[in-house]
Amino acid sequence: MSDLLRPSIRIPAVCAELLTRVRQVPPLTHCITNAVVTGFTANVLLAVGASPAMVDIVGEAGVFARIASGLLINLGTPSPEQRAASLEAAAGANEAATPWVLDPVAVGALPVRTALAADLVGMRPTAVRGNASEILALAGAGAGGRGVDALDDPDAALGSARSLAARFGAVVAVSGPVDLITDGTRVIRIANGDPLLTRVTGGGCALGALMAAFLGAARDHDADALEAVSAAALVYTLAAEHAARVADGPGSFAVGLLDALAGVDPADVIAEARVQENLVHVEEEAR
Amino acid sequence: MSDLLRPSIRIPAVCAELLTRVRQVPPLTHCITNAVVTGFTANVLLAVGASPAMVDIVGEAGVFARIASGLLINLGTPSPEQRAASLEAAAGANEAATPWVLDPVAVGALPVRTALAADLVGMRPTAVRGNASEILALAGAGAGGRGVDALDDPDAALGSARSLAARFGAVVAVSGPVDLITDGTRVIRIANGDPLLTRVTGGGCALGALMAAFLGAARDHDADALEAVSAAALVYTLAAEHAARVADGPGSFAVGLLDALAGVDPADVIAEARVQENLVHVEEEAR
Amino acid sequence: MSDLLRPSIRIPAVCAELLTRVRQVPPLTHCITNAVVTGFTANVLLAVGASPAMVDIVGEAGVFARIASGLLINLGTPSPEQRAASLEAAAGANEAATPWVLDPVAVGALPVRTALAADLVGMRPTAVRGNASEILALAGAGAGGRGVDALDDPDAALGSARSLAARFGAVVAVSGPVDLITDGTRVIRIANGDPLLTRVTGGGCALGALMAAFLGAARDHDADALEAVSAAALVYTLAAEHAARVADGPGSFAVGLLDALAGVDPADVIAEARVQENLVHVEEEAR
Repeated sequence: MSDLLRPSIRIPAVCAELLTRVRQVPPLTHCITNAVVTGFTANVLLAVGASPAMVDIVGEAGVFARIASGLLINLGTPSPEQRAASLEAAAGANEAATPWVLDPVAVGALPVRTALAADLVGMRPTAVRGNASEILALAGAGAGGRGVDALDDPDAALGSARSLAARFGAVVAVSGPVDLITDGTRVIRIANGDPLLTRVTGGGCALGALMAAFLGAARDHDADALEAVSAAALVYTLAAEHAARVADGPGSFAVGLLDALAGVDPADVIAEARVQENLVHVEEEAR
Repeated sequence: MSDLLRPSIRIPAVCAELLTRVRQVPPLTHCITNAVVTGFTANVLLAVGASPAMVDIVGEAGVFARIASGLLINLGTPSPEQRAASLEAAAGANEAATPWVLDPVAVGALPVRTALAADLVGMRPTAVRGNASEILALAGAGAGGRGVDALDDPDAALGSARSLAARFGAVVAVSGPVDLITDGTRVIRIANGDPLLTRVTGGGCALGALMAAFLGAARDHDADALEAVSAAALVYTLAAEHAARVADGPGSFAVGLLDALAGVDPADVIAEARVQENLVHVEEEAR
Repeated sequence: MSDLLRPSIRIPAVCAELLTRVRQVPPLTHCITNAVVTGFTANVLLAVGASPAMVDIVGEAGVFARIASGLLINLGTPSPEQRAASLEAAAGANEAATPWVLDPVAVGALPVRTALAADLVGMRPTAVRGNASEILALAGAGAGGRGVDALDDPDAALGSARSLAARFGAVVAVSGPVDLITDGTRVIRIANGDPLLTRVTGGGCALGALMAAFLGAARDHDADALEAVSAAALVYTLAAEHAARVADGPGSFAVGLLDALAGVDPADVIAEARVQENLVHVEEEAR
């Protein structure tokens, strides 16, 4: 399928609105995430204005998913306790209609998380975020198991992303030099960002948490899941550009990214966004 | 109960002395803390001059609590292993008279940690540190369970803090725009600090570890637990002010806080402290 | 045993070569490490150009150790799951001839990790890294148990390091003001570095991961394990010197260390190395 593209007016406008909203009413963002990136993830959420809460034990994860604004389940270091807590949290989120994001880190190559990811995607997350290899693997795993190819770029994963989105009713976000976000029909392309994001651990994982926060902020708001997820990717990649301008390397870039997330202005988002969307959506609306 | 207040001469003097002592003889500070803030907490301790040791497994936590100078038990992400290790460590600390701090993160709202916090406070920690909501919840939990109100400010929690202190023989520290520290009778108010502390994950949790370090340094020293805990809060909030002056946002603030903790001078503490205490203590001494 | 020393030409040259190689073909570096330093360790690896992967659960650690370029097992916070995963990973690494590094954090004083370290060193790691006290304890533990003396300096541990190296066929690296690395016969001394490394949590732990990355890069390359381990220590301590020049304290030093690891040039390594080696090796070659 080939898509005709046009600049998106809608996504930057939604991003500016949700950014303002996050700062006014901090969404309580429940994270079950890997041991490597917990601190950075919490700091990203605090910097943008959200309220992080890492609740990853059995007996609490389900309770908390019901009261949270949004939930992230990241499979980076899935200990037995976290695996059970993840299933409990996903069930709780579904019962309470809490939007949730699945980040299937390194799925495909490693057996325990691959099985868990298949279970979780079957519980119909609101969104799935990964790099191209992970999205390909997750789509393949659903169909019977396929390996990960770390060389795949986001466009190579677009077909898998779309079919995954259609099959599970989820928005699928593929991170890369250009981020792709799709609900199976509409496709958003975000060209903002900086390669230094790949030199900081949690560069992708924290984005999954931001998506959960923006999905939370979009509840009772005129923005759907595709738009909220895209808005999170836009503010994050735009802050990365701001941080890269003053960085001396990956250490100062990570620090500057937090400063930039706290400082980025809704007007900056409108002015600096490089976002495209396909025409499918318009054509469908015209029918 | 209404307290007449006066500027405190004693607390800044104790803080300057203990800061010097920590740098001369680094207190071995045993931390059982949550997965989000372990790195930042260890860096705060190292920056000020203390020796952190994160020993949080069964079979080692009790042994180590006996030889440590001070112990922190923080309930932020209480895995089953950490829960068992916490009870073992508290018992070991009590046997060896190692001072210990309980930080009941998010107690009240979440069932597993609420039950554990009730058990631990019953083991009579040297100090309890939390925000107003947590102190209210912990006091209520002891009496049979009460919810958390995130809008409560420290003064609203003063009554609960005092009764908690009296009931369990603990110093209770309530973090907020003005920190309150009480042993049930005396009340210390510290007005130093900066709102950026609330935009960094571990901003409060690391203070609990610093209190354990200062309690450790105060052993065999002419300062009681109320004074040592207050001294830790003073040096921390004062360093936060130094860091805020040069920060561009929460990322550079966190980095600057570590630099400031390493650089803060005992003379700065005396000159810049904004500490008050009530007159109760003086009246009692006069009796 | 007294060693005649000469400046080493070989180690700086190997370091420059391996640094270039790491950046061209990032070694997939498998880490099972402690909860305090996971984020910093991953960032150190990413900064220098390597690919970190923290895979620390049973059922995945063995699989991943077989496909990784190098493996670190660090015993800082050895939960039951990590203990089982460590044994699984060491076995997998041995089967696939993946080089691996053992970092026996705080061994000797604490019983659970001391027993685990004895098991793991018996599985013949490619390298062992620790401070003087840990190396002394590990050597003693193998012989029947001996305490840790935190005051020991690297030279006091040289005899133990040599006998440990000879007994288990491992390179042994002793971190300190001057780093010592030995395979039992040859001894490398690296005088680069900065005391601020001891004021940042993970300052030593991350070096163990870097050693695993450099051992990975040295496969199919004309450098043996002693040289690869020494090269990792050299680039790390040299970057520390660069970072210390612009640091205002331990916070900005840690940030600058990441920037410096990304920016350090192979030519810098040759120009700034302060490395000595003993003459034993030459004499042996002459025989």
